Amino acid sequence: MNIKMGVAKAGIKPSGDYDILVLKFPPSVYSAVFTKNSLAAAPVIYDRLVCSLQDKISAIVVNSGNANAGTGQEGFENAEKMAQITAESLGIDKEEVLVFSTGVIGVQLPMDKVKDGIETASSSLQELDLELAARAISTTDAFYKYYETNGLIEDKVFTVKGIAKGAGMIHPNMATMLAYIFTDVKIDKPTLDQITKLVVDRTFNSISVDGCESTNDSFVIVATGESDVEINDSNKLYFAKKVYEVALELAKMIVKDGEGATKLIEINVHQAFSKDEARKIAESIALSNLFKTAMFGNDPNWGRILAAVGQTHIGIDFSQVKLYLGDFLLYSGQPLEFDKKQASEYLKNNKEIRIDLYLGRGEEEWTYYTCDLGYKYVEINAEYTT
Amino acid sequence: MNIKMGVAKAGIKPSGDYDILVLKFPPSVYSAVFTKNSLAAAPVIYDRLVCSLQDKISAIVVNSGNANAGTGQEGFENAEKMAQITAESLGIDKEEVLVFSTGVIGVQLPMDKVKDGIETASSSLQELDLELAARAISTTDAFYKYYETNGLIEDKVFTVKGIAKGAGMIHPNMATMLAYIFTDVKIDKPTLDQITKLVVDRTFNSISVDGCESTNDSFVIVATGESDVEINDSNKLYFAKKVYEVALELAKMIVKDGEGATKLIEINVHQAFSKDEARKIAESIALSNLFKTAMFGNDPNWGRILAAVGQTHIGIDFSQVKLYLGDFLLYSGQPLEFDKKQASEYLKNNKEIRIDLYLGRGEEEWTYYTCDLGYKYVEINAEYTT
Repeated sequence: MNIKMGVAKAGIKPSGDYDILVLKFPPSVYSAVFTKNSLAAAPVIYDRLVCSLQDKISAIVVNSGNANAGTGQEGFENAEKMAQITAESLGIDKEEVLVFSTGVIGVQLPMDKVKDGIETASSSLQELDLELAARAISTTDAFYKYYETNGLIEDKVFTVKGIAKGAGMIHPNMATMLAYIFTDVKIDKPTLDQITKLVVDRTFNSISVDGCESTNDSFVIVATGESDVEINDSNKLYFAKKVYEVALELAKMIVKDGEGATKLIEINVHQAFSKDEARKIAESIALSNLFKTAMFGNDPNWGRILAAVGQTHIGIDFSQVKLYLGDFLLYSGQPLEFDKKQASEYLKNNKEIRIDLYLGRGEEEWTYYTCDLGYKYVEINAEYTT
Repeated sequence: MNIKMGVAKAGIKPSGDYDILVLKFPPSVYSAVFTKNSLAAAPVIYDRLVCSLQDKISAIVVNSGNANAGTGQEGFENAEKMAQITAESLGIDKEEVLVFSTGVIGVQLPMDKVKDGIETASSSLQELDLELAARAISTTDAFYKYYETNGLIEDKVFTVKGIAKGAGMIHPNMATMLAYIFTDVKIDKPTLDQITKLVVDRTFNSISVDGCESTNDSFVIVATGESDVEINDSNKLYFAKKVYEVALELAKMIVKDGEGATKLIEINVHQAFSKDEARKIAESIALSNLFKTAMFGNDPNWGRILAAVGQTHIGIDFSQVKLYLGDFLLYSGQPLEFDKKQASEYLKNNKEIRIDLYLGRGEEEWTYYTCDLGYKYVEINAEYTT
């Protein structure tokens, strides 16, 4: 894919590592989704304006280390300046640039450093290196998140590549901190928008680290149209699955990197009356601090799972409910005898835990991903700004 | 007040401490509120039936150490048996008894022990001792919660006494684990029901330790009518304030005893468009793990407070918002310069923290109480059943 990138160490991040990423590509169809937090960061407010006007974009600029959120009018002007500087450096229009920031909330961007960083990055463009790009947008991430796959439509190859960042403050809505996916298919914007909604709902909007919704969450997919593959009604599901594969892998990486997490927990709710019901129940379990600390302690405490189900206030008939932890049936209309020690061993010995809850009242299902809650989460978040 | 109590060490609690409480009083007007969790515990399901039929009750029985929740039909029958045993031991009707359980979820009650305990407690009735009663209903509580006050209406004295238990799994709705208030005024049931709703909304339903709603939360107020004070339209507000005083003190004790908490945090939302809006915003702050870990770390990180406000998706105009931490103005339409070190000292040196958020869009307010989130919460909850 004809996607160029540049990075710079602008000195925004305290660590001194890369904190500016510039991505440059041919004018491309795109789709973007942003946080619903009403304290939306300045770049989110700015980007929403651009998205309402522009059918194609050709550059993305990201700074890490400062979220430019809660920064009022000055913050908004700084976001616009970032677009302006990027456009000038790359020789394109300002309206072709989307701007993103991630990091600490409530501090004005050091615009001198940002300007130098964008100019440095723009003047040293190279081929897209997913790992380096992911590194430049990372903050508290313990590892860099990227993934790619190929697909074949009528013997023609297309590619889907993605990068993401995020570890704390991860919860819908929306994406989850920052995620970008690039593909080279030819596709119209309405179809890409439709696929984006479908995919984001089942991936970035179905993960939670701590139930806290960020002010900066953004997801963008860019389709350069360089390949010979043209997406139409007969192949769009196949293409959507490929995008889903990349998005899901990125989303799961974010949960695995949940601040202080030792386990990725997949919560499958089956036999629900509706998708919405299945999702609400899966989400309620995923957000329960009591459940998450039990998982950290390798404690097969199914009472906390069912209590979280009940907290939705959905009128479940618990005499019809079955609950599995891995292969262990813990509850089937009533408490069952099970080998607590073995179930605890399952939790202790696996980094990926599976929970299956059968409601016995319908056909719909939803999967939610979360992590456990341990001492390290407290440690990381008790001393972030000071 | 003519309220007798008996306690017993029935061996339900692993600690071996008191785990049965029987309260006996003259047939009295009462009002009760229960959890909205759809996995309501067996005693809650049983009590709801009693409440729908009975205008007066004359006994309360509580066991601690086992919640009798998630226990199916057998659990329901055991709750009814507890009422039956209590009624027989006290020589009253089964329908005059309310039953409560608190402790671990999903284990059947050891009915032999329960029976012996209730019989022992019922045969050794004594004057109401608030501390001992609170002790008998406690589980992970670090201290016993009780409070009393007097009031004067037309030169006649009345009394309001309360006990409560609860430390974890504390979140509306309802009360918060268990709370009982006794008063000797003469009052009709509709007025008592009205006052109960008013008081519970502003106290037990406005506190959160971990956002997890228990399956057993119950609040009962009993008015024996022994005093010469008769509650009517002209004095009911005064009486309600006295009940509120007791309920608020008990509710704040529960938050102070929040598992692992080092601080009680009072969140006041002012100038909201409606009470409901003020409450939603206060609650969103109170539930934010990121906010709560910052408080634990003595970090005046106002960005996390405003992000939690934004997470409600209410369309706040943040240029009109003012935020105080204690006396420190942190934000006024934009980030302000403030002495971070001094603000951090304020957090470090006070056990009771006050946050005032002015929305600048109305006249309504709400206060929510929460605690910080520290290592100890993880420790307590990672190893509760195993």
